[in-house]
Amino acid sequence: MIPIGERINGMFTDVKRAILEKDASVIHVLARRQTEAGAKFLDCNVGTAVADREGAMRWLVTEIQNAVKTPIAVDSQNFDVVKAGVAACDSPVMINSVSGDPEKLKTYISYALEKDAALIALTMDRRGIPQDVNTRVEVAATIVTTALEMGLAMGKLYIDPIIIPVNVAQDQPARLLEVIQQVRMLADPPPHITLGLSNVSQKTAERSLINRIFLVMAAGVGLDSAIVDVLDTDLMDAWVTAEMLLNKQIYSDSFLKAARMM
Amino acid sequence: MIPIGERINGMFTDVKRAILEKDASVIHVLARRQTEAGAKFLDCNVGTAVADREGAMRWLVTEIQNAVKTPIAVDSQNFDVVKAGVAACDSPVMINSVSGDPEKLKTYISYALEKDAALIALTMDRRGIPQDVNTRVEVAATIVTTALEMGLAMGKLYIDPIIIPVNVAQDQPARLLEVIQQVRMLADPPPHITLGLSNVSQKTAERSLINRIFLVMAAGVGLDSAIVDVLDTDLMDAWVTAEMLLNKQIYSDSFLKAARMM
Repeated sequence: MIPIGERINGMFTDVKRAILEKDASVIHVLARRQTEAGAKFLDCNVGTAVADREGAMRWLVTEIQNAVKTPIAVDSQNFDVVKAGVAACDSPVMINSVSGDPEKLKTYISYALEKDAALIALTMDRRGIPQDVNTRVEVAATIVTTALEMGLAMGKLYIDPIIIPVNVAQDQPARLLEVIQQVRMLADPPPHITLGLSNVSQKTAERSLINRIFLVMAAGVGLDSAIVDVLDTDLMDAWVTAEMLLNKQIYSDSFLKAARMM
Repeated sequence: MIPIGERINGMFTDVKRAILEKDASVIHVLARRQTEAGAKFLDCNVGTAVADREGAMRWLVTEIQNAVKTPIAVDSQNFDVVKAGVAACDSPVMINSVSGDPEKLKTYISYALEKDAALIALTMDRRGIPQDVNTRVEVAATIVTTALEMGLAMGKLYIDPIIIPVNVAQDQPARLLEVIQQVRMLADPPPHITLGLSNVSQKTAERSLINRIFLVMAAGVGLDSAIVDVLDTDLMDAWVTAEMLLNKQIYSDSFLKAARMM
């Protein structure tokens, strides 16, 4: 399992304030706590509060690296902000994210190859987010084919089938499970499959419960990564238990403790 | 979701003692509490402590019916004990269970048809419990075909693919998820699929966590029933949330509370 820590994001008020006031201690604490909780990557998103997003991204990346060695997922929809973040990274990096729009995709894959970076690609294109299973799988197939043609290994590619909040479209979570199953079959070895998990529970009651139950069902059909609140112990315990039941982590009476020490 | 309450079973010491001492109050309380917790059937198994198992089954069924109207799942591997239990029931009944052995199967299906009973059929036969996916699905196919030929509706048939404890064979839970997916495709409409869930966590630490995570993954691929500890609130909340995310229960901010009132 590849948890990506979601907390260093300017949409959270503490991070937004830290960016505006250049208060590095907030970032250091979040970087350390998420790393200790098992994050394999730390997502890094400057949000929308600052005018100079490239400068803010450079500052955030630098401060994360001042605290931990955990790889960073540079998160922006703006390519210049992505490049500013990647340039500031001194360890392997992930780019979050590009859409399945063919031209953009080629630009980002070239750049990922140049920088030896992993890449999250969303199953959407110029037409928007498809609501049905087949169109999402088609976009994923375009992404996988393009990556293979250009030489990006499946181990570096993360397909994000895009979760819609359950209180917005209650039919979507079940469809996403079908998409995950089909995306897993697109190549051998398959690409990674990831999700911005917390979206599923946006503006619902029982957010933590809804997040972890959907994560477990998605893991059961092939999801191996997710952008999550790694500080949610119930969520991480549920995920570890799912992986143990899927025979991906060895069972022992202390399997939960063992997973935390990995 | 069709939860079958597991607690009225002579393998539990309180039930064993109640059977031996004819202490009906223990049975009444368990019948009421499981019904309030959402059990759609109450499993009823006399265990191995008494010599007169037919008499004990009659007594247990009678006492459950003195407390609640919840349908009973008459649980025994002995056909005479099953018949004693079914004869004592005055509401629709479930028979738990028969194997996929063709002769036994025909006997039990005839009997289920005669009594208008639901029937749990295990994916095992004279060769024992198959360890691989294909053989289990083959046995399930034999069960489904026999049921359809004899006129037992899929709504009355529950396939139990048999869970092995994860600390005995860690590869089995993932295989069971594959079996569930394939069994769901054997007929349209499909048979119900159920499990003696608590077996998965036998003699492990973290029993409740392991039970509910496996239940959620199994529900994600098509399980719609399980023999469970319905008094485990975390388990029932997890199941309700899974069904809500699968669009089988309507989302509202109080979806957990709403499910409890059904």
